[in-house]
Amino acid sequence: MDHECPFCRIVQGRGKADILYSDNDVVVIRDIHPKAPVHLLVIPKRHVGSADDIEDPSTWSTVMDAAVKVARELGLREGGYRLVVNCGAGAGQTVNHLHVHLLAGRVFGWPPG
Amino acid sequence: MDHECPFCRIVQGRGKADILYSDNDVVVIRDIHPKAPVHLLVIPKRHVGSADDIEDPSTWSTVMDAAVKVARELGLREGGYRLVVNCGAGAGQTVNHLHVHLLAGRVFGWPPG
Repeated sequence: MDHECPFCRIVQGRGKADILYSDNDVVVIRDIHPKAPVHLLVIPKRHVGSADDIEDPSTWSTVMDAAVKVARELGLREGGYRLVVNCGAGAGQTVNHLHVHLLAGRVFGWPPG
Repeated sequence: MDHECPFCRIVQGRGKADILYSDNDVVVIRDIHPKAPVHLLVIPKRHVGSADDIEDPSTWSTVMDAAVKVARELGLREGGYRLVVNCGAGAGQTVNHLHVHLLAGRVFGWPPG
């Protein structure tokens, strides 16, 4: 845990968030600045700074599988959904705790930003 | 293997591609319509249609870890990079074989498409 990290605060129940799903390994919240009708963040409970900082590759299975399961439960498959991970400030990562953006509910343009 | 799938053709050495990296599990190629100075596709060798079709969650570890390793080898960490997975035609998936877009080398806007 990183006591200064806003996502660790949410994981610990000390930060305000609209939590849709939580299990032993991940928490799924609504993005506070949504860019689509559905815009969620899938966050591993254990603090890891970014994609580049992952030491155990199974972290990927945990968070991406959770994203797919939540998408399925919300019925997003038919319309489609986009998963995005920004690694580093240059790519738009604003919170230094790994998170996967799950966006759905509208048409998405290309390129992805 | 799906004999009609363009990515399976590449995996089998029957399709034309600019291959940057290959191991037992994944192949990394350049996108033929690049949207950034670096725009790669990380593709599992075993055919799986989309994120929603993954049966073994470790597939995620394999492809995402490969993406991070390639990014590291190419020195993309400092400038940052974006990983994108489109699930379904509505999200922009045009080839029905799971792939992760790895984009880097420019400033990325938000929203991601």
